Amino acid sequence: MAIAKPTIGFDADDTLWHNEVIFEQTHERYRALLARYHDAGKVDRTLLSTEMRNLELYGYGIKGFMLSAIETAIELTAGRISAGEIRQLIELGRGMLAHPVDLLDGAAETLTKLSARYRLVLITKGDLRDQERKLAKSGLAGNFQHIEIVSEKDAAAYRRLFSRLGIEPARFLMVGNSLKSDILPVLELGGAGVHIPYHLTWAAERAEQPADHAGRLYTVRHLRDLPGVVETWASA
Amino acid sequence: MAIAKPTIGFDADDTLWHNEVIFEQTHERYRALLARYHDAGKVDRTLLSTEMRNLELYGYGIKGFMLSAIETAIELTAGRISAGEIRQLIELGRGMLAHPVDLLDGAAETLTKLSARYRLVLITKGDLRDQERKLAKSGLAGNFQHIEIVSEKDAAAYRRLFSRLGIEPARFLMVGNSLKSDILPVLELGGAGVHIPYHLTWAAERAEQPADHAGRLYTVRHLRDLPGVVETWASA
Repeated sequence: MAIAKPTIGFDADDTLWHNEVIFEQTHERYRALLARYHDAGKVDRTLLSTEMRNLELYGYGIKGFMLSAIETAIELTAGRISAGEIRQLIELGRGMLAHPVDLLDGAAETLTKLSARYRLVLITKGDLRDQERKLAKSGLAGNFQHIEIVSEKDAAAYRRLFSRLGIEPARFLMVGNSLKSDILPVLELGGAGVHIPYHLTWAAERAEQPADHAGRLYTVRHLRDLPGVVETWASA
Repeated sequence: MAIAKPTIGFDADDTLWHNEVIFEQTHERYRALLARYHDAGKVDRTLLSTEMRNLELYGYGIKGFMLSAIETAIELTAGRISAGEIRQLIELGRGMLAHPVDLLDGAAETLTKLSARYRLVLITKGDLRDQERKLAKSGLAGNFQHIEIVSEKDAAAYRRLFSRLGIEPARFLMVGNSLKSDILPVLELGGAGVHIPYHLTWAAERAEQPADHAGRLYTVRHLRDLPGVVETWASA
């Protein structure tokens, strides 16, 4: 039997398509809605604190964000927010869910190029329905041999996936914009990572750049730089 | 190589643990909250209609239910509902998410018994985080060789699962309380089904009892009756 191809895992949100910009647009409207009660800083801090408190119960995704945004608005206005304004918050969330998928520049070509030589898997966290919808809209699904939507991207989740798909960590490379979710847990298990920073990072995803991982950690600025780095890794 | 064991698929909500009763308790409080505006029938019909309209966008699960319940309450009160009352709706939803998992009578013993002779897989739809939490609380996860949480249980979803797990439909039997989600799509693909009706069925899950499916469709009243029926099916 031939040796299986190396596997490349891809994150989706802010790695293959824009996501955080949609949240950022929503945050702007949210601040505007609450501007007569509190300044933007207070609104942002309170919303983030509500989201963090609710994360265990709601998980990641837009629906949990909507519920946290409604809860925060009631708290920040001491209950003076009107039903009509809450209705506006629901509409904001619906707009996010129905938002078109805007691919990052070079996403389709990079996947096509890599899929010829590597086994590609998509590993994304968040809401099942929402991630499936975005993947369908993206037109990228056909590049992946396997698609995994998980509730958390930690070492345990990657370990389960390696076991299920028969992936040897030393022959696995993960590509993503989040050091915390895409890179650190994979390095911990002995895999490699390519970090492609996005210009916006949700506060809950921020992490320190890890120390040197001789030949297992790469940073590139652009998806188009990925095939070259993958070649370097695979031929090492 | 030995022939693989037949596979038995299990639904979770209202098949292994109680679920619809929790929604029913919430509906009662919801009707009470809106009782000064509308009678229970009108409240129920409007909420269901909102849920159906939002299903494509929100998918199944408690968070989508919460958002639909808030939207419906604003609509039914023509915006007169207070922020404090909306806060109560959020708390109702949080109570559902944090609710203990009550196993159906006989669930643990039946799974233990069947797992000795069959490959068991859990196939449930809904919110990823919520289903994982319930499964962890249930203590039943160890009985299953594979756990699949899907956004919809239709023929296409079962077909993907059969392909992924190498399941031959003729050697697959699905156990569940929903004819629509657990039984009909599996019969369509050539598998077998054991329907165990629950005493409550969400309106969106109601379906007609299918016609005779010679030896492929069984109905039992209780999980404890399942091993006998499985034996009959497996030895046919």
